[in-house]
Amino acid sequence: MKQSYKQNQVISYYMCDRNRTLTLSMLVNLLMEVSENHSAGLGREESFMRERGLSWIILRYEFDIDRMPAYKEEVEIETFATEYNKLFTYREFIVRDKTNASIIKVKTTFALMTNETRKMARIPEEVVEPYGAVFSKRIRRDAKPNEVDLEQADEKNYFVRYFDIDPNQHVNNSKYIDWLLDTLEPEFLSKNHLRHGVISFDKEVKEGDAVTSKVSRRSEDDLHTDHRIFVKDTVHAAASFKWTENTRMESHDGNDQ
Amino acid sequence: MKQSYKQNQVISYYMCDRNRTLTLSMLVNLLMEVSENHSAGLGREESFMRERGLSWIILRYEFDIDRMPAYKEEVEIETFATEYNKLFTYREFIVRDKTNASIIKVKTTFALMTNETRKMARIPEEVVEPYGAVFSKRIRRDAKPNEVDLEQADEKNYFVRYFDIDPNQHVNNSKYIDWLLDTLEPEFLSKNHLRHGVISFDKEVKEGDAVTSKVSRRSEDDLHTDHRIFVKDTVHAAASFKWTENTRMESHDGNDQ
Repeated sequence: MKQSYKQNQVISYYMCDRNRTLTLSMLVNLLMEVSENHSAGLGREESFMRERGLSWIILRYEFDIDRMPAYKEEVEIETFATEYNKLFTYREFIVRDKTNASIIKVKTTFALMTNETRKMARIPEEVVEPYGAVFSKRIRRDAKPNEVDLEQADEKNYFVRYFDIDPNQHVNNSKYIDWLLDTLEPEFLSKNHLRHGVISFDKEVKEGDAVTSKVSRRSEDDLHTDHRIFVKDTVHAAASFKWTENTRMESHDGNDQ
Repeated sequence: MKQSYKQNQVISYYMCDRNRTLTLSMLVNLLMEVSENHSAGLGREESFMRERGLSWIILRYEFDIDRMPAYKEEVEIETFATEYNKLFTYREFIVRDKTNASIIKVKTTFALMTNETRKMARIPEEVVEPYGAVFSKRIRRDAKPNEVDLEQADEKNYFVRYFDIDPNQHVNNSKYIDWLLDTLEPEFLSKNHLRHGVISFDKEVKEGDAVTSKVSRRSEDDLHTDHRIFVKDTVHAAASFKWTENTRMESHDGNDQ
């Protein structure tokens, strides 16, 4: 039977951007924490995997965002594994506010990495069994991020920092998100909020790498942005985001509720 | 009477560095969260200050670190305001492990900023009264960070990123810490742990600023590092850290306890 796990989370100051709402990179950090707690409850915590020389790596996020929670707001994060095949597992997350309304849905694709070789591993039955997800031979063909118009793309360069590297010895996936979004103008990021996003992680970024983050808009007044993270000439991550203009001052501050 | 506030905290994956221990910047984020919760319990939460056009800003940290908590470890963070004068308040934090042993002590100096002018404000009695701290006319002369040897300093350059800016519309103090430490070699940061540190924040860093972080060692095999954060020719923050070599593999992983 499909095992679902729920955890409440109050949004801290350090999780928020200048507009007092949760950042996408912190959302991802929180989802990964809930996912680990789910796994730990099923006896499949990170140390269980490590003892077997394995780590979960994330390959894809797909976000549907009604609104990001605000500073001091308490939300419930639910997660469950939906399906797996020999190479991938599919996990979903639902973030709900105090009225029990779903405000964020996230679909994710995970794979297993053999720590020694850093290559993908087949998923042992022992690892996935407790989650109660459905086995399906079919490997999903999920929508990919749109192409970037490299002719007119804006770009910024980043060096990997010491604290970008996580215990898996590569850049943590949440750090890519800052590189992806930081190429957009501050005015754009302040004026709009993210409604839908797809991020695919294609290759690890490692210590010493210099990264170029490129972004293009589909047209001047269009609210789609397409992104690539390059190391030299190789794409390491890709993303497409759809934005909506902030039409109202939303007030979900914990103090106002 | 002095009001003390305690909160338990489990260390998440996203709070840790590659060695599975809490980072200094996340420590600071957690301390600020506990401080805000303390204030909220006394009716002096951030929105109370904001309604009066005021924000707390941090001017100085002094850290004494026996060890940083490990991934999944649960710690208790205690905080209390010790003393104040017309311009500054002094707040301390103690982090304790499950055996109730103190593993980190932090002394901090706060001031009030008038949001409109971004200048320091006198501290109204109404604001500090509930904390039960002692009023003292005396303004402390705390130890300052050591000079940096600019002749032999290493340096790295950083641009302020969109997500470095917090709701106070300047770079969050935790972000300076990544700039300060990232100038040190990865081998140095992996091999040593921080035992003592002083950071002073002298000027705000803002959107659009380009930052130079400089560091010098007192001698080749010395474990003191002295740091400055410059914007153009002006020092915006200064720090001195004392390090100790990791002599043992510490195991405080939640799974091992």
